[in-house]
Amino acid sequence: MLGRAIDKGIIELSVTDIRDYTADKHNRVDDTPYGGGAGMVMQVQPIIDACRSSGYGGPVLYMSPRGEILTGAMAKELSEMPEITILCGHYEGVDQRVLDMLDAREVSIGDYVLTGGELPAMVLVDTVARFIEGVLSGEESVMNESIYSGLLEYPQYSKPREYEGEQVPEILLSGNHGEIDLWRWEQSLALTRERRPDLFEEYLKKPMKLTKRERAILNKYR
Amino acid sequence: MLGRAIDKGIIELSVTDIRDYTADKHNRVDDTPYGGGAGMVMQVQPIIDACRSSGYGGPVLYMSPRGEILTGAMAKELSEMPEITILCGHYEGVDQRVLDMLDAREVSIGDYVLTGGELPAMVLVDTVARFIEGVLSGEESVMNESIYSGLLEYPQYSKPREYEGEQVPEILLSGNHGEIDLWRWEQSLALTRERRPDLFEEYLKKPMKLTKRERAILNKYR
Repeated sequence: MLGRAIDKGIIELSVTDIRDYTADKHNRVDDTPYGGGAGMVMQVQPIIDACRSSGYGGPVLYMSPRGEILTGAMAKELSEMPEITILCGHYEGVDQRVLDMLDAREVSIGDYVLTGGELPAMVLVDTVARFIEGVLSGEESVMNESIYSGLLEYPQYSKPREYEGEQVPEILLSGNHGEIDLWRWEQSLALTRERRPDLFEEYLKKPMKLTKRERAILNKYR
Repeated sequence: MLGRAIDKGIIELSVTDIRDYTADKHNRVDDTPYGGGAGMVMQVQPIIDACRSSGYGGPVLYMSPRGEILTGAMAKELSEMPEITILCGHYEGVDQRVLDMLDAREVSIGDYVLTGGELPAMVLVDTVARFIEGVLSGEESVMNESIYSGLLEYPQYSKPREYEGEQVPEILLSGNHGEIDLWRWEQSLALTRERRPDLFEEYLKKPMKLTKRERAILNKYR
């Protein structure tokens, strides 16, 4: 998806290796922390010089377990900027002055620790790109929207109708689209309430115009 | 880090391409969903056959925006299993019967949508591997522990002492380790309360044995 968008010129991606900018004669980019402690800290000089030489633009995002947790809403917001710069540190961290000088926004992809910022940066780029017009095909865009409806996705089934005794639910073969939509919605409601009560609470707060039948279904899950 | 662990024989990683197992003469692995709707659904036959032929073992994890949110605790739990199998779908989803037949546990790396399960699988492998003995060096392991203390990391500084007028905080140059530890702890408390009130609440609930001085510091942030 990303490769296609780059080929079409919809998005542009450029990568800078911080190591190319070190002024250290041994080519090092990290050193021990002031005040002691385990691990190495990425130094200020190579990072600042790498940024300046690469002509970076837009807000600087620093991938870090200390940051705000990435969400779909944040990805959408970032997708509206003409340019963003992503700084990938290592989990030992970067010199705090880097973050202060670049006015970096710290972003975490979740509450778990990773070896470096590279995978989180790839995750960020992927999810942000999905919001940029032309990156997804028309059909994918429709799904993208529906995914942000606030409920977890209902179960999907494809061919064959039967596989090792496992059947596709009858309703999906009925051709009755009104009933299928209701069934899917109910599946999503049940799944969301069970797995993600936090999302379900949010969903219930949204203003909704419901038919009598829909209200009866929703009331089963309130 | 992963490459090193694989070279040392501490962990083993094997990748299976589902497409190699399709029985479809056009080599397809997906088809339209029963009941209609946008997108394609990955079919049951190629996935089940790919699993069986690859002699998969351990719990099957399916990377999906519909899953439980990955946490450090879940990564630790998974690291204790001799083997895990990760199924990477595409965001349109896989046939529900795959998940039922494999008794798959759905895991999400966060509340954002990605193009496929490959990046989430890499994230899962990286964070799980960090808990396996021998994967991290001794020094890294110590830091790994500290990262799970429940507070966000304090700011780090390395050489030089001054860079374009930006100074390292005096306290870190004092050599007084008792005071440095207190300063770092206070920085972590302030940062966690500001950025992640949810983690801060959890932290305050833990039983802690504090000195008078520590209690005075903590009380500033309660």
